[in-house]
Amino acid sequence: MSVYDATVPAFMHTLTALSGLVNKAEAYCQTKGIQGEVLLSARLYPDMLPFSRQIQFACDFAAKSSARLAYFYLKATPNTEKSFDELRQRLAKTIDYLKTFKPAQFEGADEKDVTFPTGPSTHMTVKGQQFINRYAFPNFFFHAAIAHGILRHNGVDIGKRDFLGVA
Amino acid sequence: MSVYDATVPAFMHTLTALSGLVNKAEAYCQTKGIQGEVLLSARLYPDMLPFSRQIQFACDFAAKSSARLAYFYLKATPNTEKSFDELRQRLAKTIDYLKTFKPAQFEGADEKDVTFPTGPSTHMTVKGQQFINRYAFPNFFFHAAIAHGILRHNGVDIGKRDFLGVA
Repeated sequence: MSVYDATVPAFMHTLTALSGLVNKAEAYCQTKGIQGEVLLSARLYPDMLPFSRQIQFACDFAAKSSARLAYFYLKATPNTEKSFDELRQRLAKTIDYLKTFKPAQFEGADEKDVTFPTGPSTHMTVKGQQFINRYAFPNFFFHAAIAHGILRHNGVDIGKRDFLGVA
Repeated sequence: MSVYDATVPAFMHTLTALSGLVNKAEAYCQTKGIQGEVLLSARLYPDMLPFSRQIQFACDFAAKSSARLAYFYLKATPNTEKSFDELRQRLAKTIDYLKTFKPAQFEGADEKDVTFPTGPSTHMTVKGQQFINRYAFPNFFFHAAIAHGILRHNGVDIGKRDFLGVA
C-alpha cells in the first residue's frame, strides 16, 4: 500500500462528506429560520472551537499533513470563512489541492523523518508512519467528527451515514 | 507502507488514548460527586449513542476492521460494560487482540476484496484500500472523537492532547 493510497484518498473522501454536512446544516437553517451564524458559531463547550473552525482545522490537517509527507512546506491558510458557502469553497479548494499530489511524491515517506509543530514554539520529529497514525489521522478525524457532533447536538437531521459519505 | 503499519498501530494508539479519557472521566465523577452512570449514559443528542456505546463501537471497529483485513471472522463482542473500569478492560482486551496480528497477515489486503455489513441485511464489497479509507478509519475515529466530545460537553477537563495520547 503506497503512503499516498493510505492517506490522500481518505482525506478527500471525508472532506467531501463534510461538504455534504455543510449542505445539510445550511438547509436546516433555512427550513427552521435560523441565522447561519448560529450554527457556524455553535460549540460543544465554551472553550471548544465552533463548527466553522472545526471545518477549517479539518481542511488544514488534510492539506498540511499531505504536504509534510510530500516534503512541501504549506503556508497557513487564513481562516476567513463566514458562511456555509465559504466553508464549502474552503473544502473544495482543499480537495483540489490534494488532487495535485502524485503517489510518487510520497514514496518512502513512512520511513522518513517528519517534523511538525506541536505548539506555538515546539516541534516534534517522528517517522512518517507514526506521523500518519498518531498525528495526521487523529487530528483530521477529530475535527471532522466534532463538526458532525456539533450539528447533531443542534438538531440537524444527519447520521453517521452522512459522515461516511454514503447518505 | 504495509497495510498492517497503515492500520493496526493507529487503532492501538487511539484506543490507548481512549483509556486515558476513561480515567479522566472517572476522576471527574469522583471529584464532583457525580454517579459514573451519568457520564457513561451521556449523549450529544437523544438519538445518538451514549459515551459507553461510543467506546464499545470504537473497540469493535478497530478489532473487526483489522480482522476483516486479515481475513478472520470475528464474532460480535457483547456490549455488557457498565462501569469505567469495565470500559477500560474492554479497551485493554481490544488492544491485546490487535497485538495478536502479524504484518504478514495483511499482505496485499489493500488490493483484495473486503466484504462488510452496511446494515442489518445489507453488505458491501470494496477493495481493502477503500475499506480502510472510507469505512474502517472514518467509523473508528468517529466513535472515538464523539466519545471525547461527550466528555467535553459535560465539562470533563480534557483537550485534544488527551485524544492524541500526548497529554
